[in-house]
Amino acid sequence: MTTVNDPAVVAEVTDLYLKYEEALANNNLEVMDSLFWDAPEVVRFGVTENLYGSEEIRNFRASRVNPKIEREISHLKVVTFGKDTATVTLEFRRIINGVERFGRQSQTWYRFPQGWKIVSAHVSLLPV
Amino acid sequence: MTTVNDPAVVAEVTDLYLKYEEALANNNLEVMDSLFWDAPEVVRFGVTENLYGSEEIRNFRASRVNPKIEREISHLKVVTFGKDTATVTLEFRRIINGVERFGRQSQTWYRFPQGWKIVSAHVSLLPV
Repeated sequence: MTTVNDPAVVAEVTDLYLKYEEALANNNLEVMDSLFWDAPEVVRFGVTENLYGSEEIRNFRASRVNPKIEREISHLKVVTFGKDTATVTLEFRRIINGVERFGRQSQTWYRFPQGWKIVSAHVSLLPV
Repeated sequence: MTTVNDPAVVAEVTDLYLKYEEALANNNLEVMDSLFWDAPEVVRFGVTENLYGSEEIRNFRASRVNPKIEREISHLKVVTFGKDTATVTLEFRRIINGVERFGRQSQTWYRFPQGWKIVSAHVSLLPV
């Protein structure tokens, strides 16, 4: 029987997610990097880019022109499966070039011996 | 030690994913429904909609006006973690209202006692 949403696991992943959100808001590359899986198989689909492997993700973050992401998040949902697997989803609102936009973010987290890591991520905007 | 990409697990999830892709192309609601987790916690972010829970997903699919999705897929990647967790990502190309569009799809799969299910999905188009 799979334990969905064991409270201790949900709390652990939620804390880590909030750490990630804070790092994103402050463009803390080191923290963001430490929370992503360091492997060629990690995938990050961003608003305008498809990135494969840690190196592409790191290079993208390092080259951002407007790196601080100001956004209001809502509908944050952390769902955990057993002790080692979680999904984190949320909706967000951002002002981009003076226009209000709504977006969504999904992440898959997996617990390795070295801790929880984001193994796949997808961020997108809804059409205007 | 986590076994990433055990060949037997990758093969199993890949087969199921291809079954899902075929169901999507043919608007086979029953197969799509059977491959999604039947729970209020399942999430599906589509190109224009944010859906929470099996019922919203089912209602959305049943009400589609142009239900058959013709798309060319590329960069299909199935990554598995242990025996019970997988991510499936791909890029696609579609013609929407005569315009060529490029998109991305991410899914998280988890193996329950009753089999592998999609527990979270995100589909989006890159900006034109």
